[in-house]
Amino acid sequence: MPHTTAPSPRTRVRRLPERAHYDADSIAAIVDAAMLCTVAFQIDGMVHAIPTIHWREGEHLYIHGAKGSRMLKALTAGEACVTIALADGLVLARSAMHHSMNYRSVVLYGRFEAVTEPAHKLASLRAFIDGLYPGRWDTLRPISDKELNATTVLRIALDEASAKVRDWGVKDDEEDLAWPVWAGVIPLRTVTGAPEIEHDSVGRVVPPTRFG
Amino acid sequence: MPHTTAPSPRTRVRRLPERAHYDADSIAAIVDAAMLCTVAFQIDGMVHAIPTIHWREGEHLYIHGAKGSRMLKALTAGEACVTIALADGLVLARSAMHHSMNYRSVVLYGRFEAVTEPAHKLASLRAFIDGLYPGRWDTLRPISDKELNATTVLRIALDEASAKVRDWGVKDDEEDLAWPVWAGVIPLRTVTGAPEIEHDSVGRVVPPTRFG
Ligand SMILES: Cc1cc2nc3c(=O)[nH]c(=O)nc-3n(C[C@H](O)[C@H](O)[C@H](O)COP(=O)(O)OP(=O)(O)OC[C@H]3O[C@@H](n4cnc5c(N)ncnc54)[C@H](O)[C@@H]3O)c2cc1C
Ligand SMILES: Cc1cc2nc3c(=O)[nH]c(=O)nc-3n(C[C@H](O)[C@H](O)[C@H](O)COP(=O)(O)OP(=O)(O)OC[C@H]3O[C@@H](n4cnc5c(N)ncnc54)[C@H](O)[C@@H]3O)c2cc1C
Ligand code: HEM
Ligand code: HEM
Repeated sequence: MPHTTAPSPRTRVRRLPERAHYDADSIAAIVDAAMLCTVAFQIDGMVHAIPTIHWREGEHLYIHGAKGSRMLKALTAGEACVTIALADGLVLARSAMHHSMNYRSVVLYGRFEAVTEPAHKLASLRAFIDGLYPGRWDTLRPISDKELNATTVLRIALDEASAKVRDWGVKDDEEDLAWPVWAGVIPLRTVTGAPEIEHDSVGRVVPPTRFG
Repeated sequence: MPHTTAPSPRTRVRRLPERAHYDADSIAAIVDAAMLCTVAFQIDGMVHAIPTIHWREGEHLYIHGAKGSRMLKALTAGEACVTIALADGLVLARSAMHHSMNYRSVVLYGRFEAVTEPAHKLASLRAFIDGLYPGRWDTLRPISDKELNATTVLRIALDEASAKVRDWGVKDDEEDLAWPVWAGVIPLRTVTGAPEIEHDSVGRVVPPTRFG
């Protein structure tokens, strides 16, 4: 397990630290495998946590939404904690307590900044769409200035982050191994279903997605 | 859409409020459909958000972990915000901006309390296991007092909560409907894979899970 980067005091995993990774590649891989994160922030000392889509470009995680969004406005005014979690499997042990899950998660601290430079903002939205649906941006009705103005794009550096991963079988106490109940892992994964075309869609060719 | 309960000032959805639900049944259904939540809280004015498994009993959401967990200790000392999000579909529009997702989410505010009364704690852990794997608790190596003592169970009332749901097709601007690109929804869902038995499992019968 690569531990090429040291954790900050804040991101050092204390519970089950053998499951921690701090290198940029491990973190980027989990950010890319997930589409959703939860963004936690404060307003007047009160904690809020809101689910949102993210994408990654290089060393930054990006999010987007309405210019008027309370979350997006609060995020440029203070610190945030971004959380990503992927459920990879159900772990069934012989004892109740050793039941667990296989998972990949990231916790990231820092401050979002607005992407305001017009060419950068446009390129980011293109990267967002094409990252999900390769080649789609150029096939869409071109985006308007009004739409661009109504949209806020924020990004946060993937600097102060930790990953935590469990990806193995069952750990039971030695003396329980012969207990006669099924022990093992039931994998979980997210799949796409049959595309549901809009009744008035003129285009008939389902676009490729990065989800296969 | 039932709106039988009024939102609190804190839980009133402001962006796209037509997607909001505040009734207990809508909220319970989303809590039950998800297995994971993100719990956001503060320590010394700093925001943390940690992913964890949850289960529901009646009007409460439950979580569990180590007695020594920083998260669990912080949660009984202050307010939390619990977030649940389920990704149900990718929505592909003719314009970039009308791309979206179908989803179900819950945001819950309040304060966790510890479940310390021994019979209640034991019954909750049984409900947790049997809720995931019907009938499994009685087949397991019985839980020990030492294990119970090492475990903290917390719960939070599902009182101050909002749900937000998008579950329809594509909304494009009238003038874009003839644009010749595929428009529609690609459903997403989580499925279980083939169970992977532990090499030394004596039990051979894969237990039922609530995931089918
Ligand atoms: C899908 C899933 C389900 C889980 N279910 C449970 C559960 O039911 N009960 C339970 O106790 N724990 C669960 N965990 C683990 C949980 O996320 C915490 O790691 C654990 O509870 C320890 O919490 P703590 O506050 O004591 O962490 P500490 O180790 O004290 O946290 C210190 C720092 O470590 C980092 N860190 C902590 N947890 C994570 C993480 N998951 N990913 C990346 N960085 C992290 C953060 O930077 C944090 O500030 C689950 C994790 C995942 C991904
Ligand atoms: C899977 C998923 C992906 C999403 N992706 C994006 C995205 O990429 N960009 C984006 O802008 N938004 C996204 N959303 C919607 C996002 O969660 C917020 O609802 C939205 O951004 C408005 O944020 P706000 O802070 O302005 O909300 P406000 O409406 O000002 O929030 C006020 C209160 O409404 C409640 N509330 C807000 N959002 C939710 C919610 N999702 N579920 C339950 N209660 C809620 C909370 O109690 C909150 O305190 C996504 C939601 C889901 C579930
Ligand atoms: C019902 C009896 C159970 C007991 C007594 C119990 C106890 C515990 C304890 C003490 C921890 C903390 C480990 C640590 O941080 O050192 C923990 C963590 C955890 N439990 Fe449980 N548990 C039970 C059931 C389950 C079940 C059924 C699941 C899965 C569905 C589960 C999943 C987890 C996960 C994912 C963690 C986090 C481990 C990590 O940080 O990587 N537990 N549990
Ligand atoms: C790239 C061009 C895009 C632009 C300009 C754009 C713009 C916006 C804006 C302005 C909002 C705020 C809506 C509101 O709260 O009033 C929003 C919300 C949202 N966007 Fe996008 N978006 C784009 C692409 C996408 C894509 C590709 C997806 C999906 C993969 C997506 C998913 C969402 C979701 C889920 C919301 C939240 C809606 C809600 O609150 O229910 N967007 N977007």
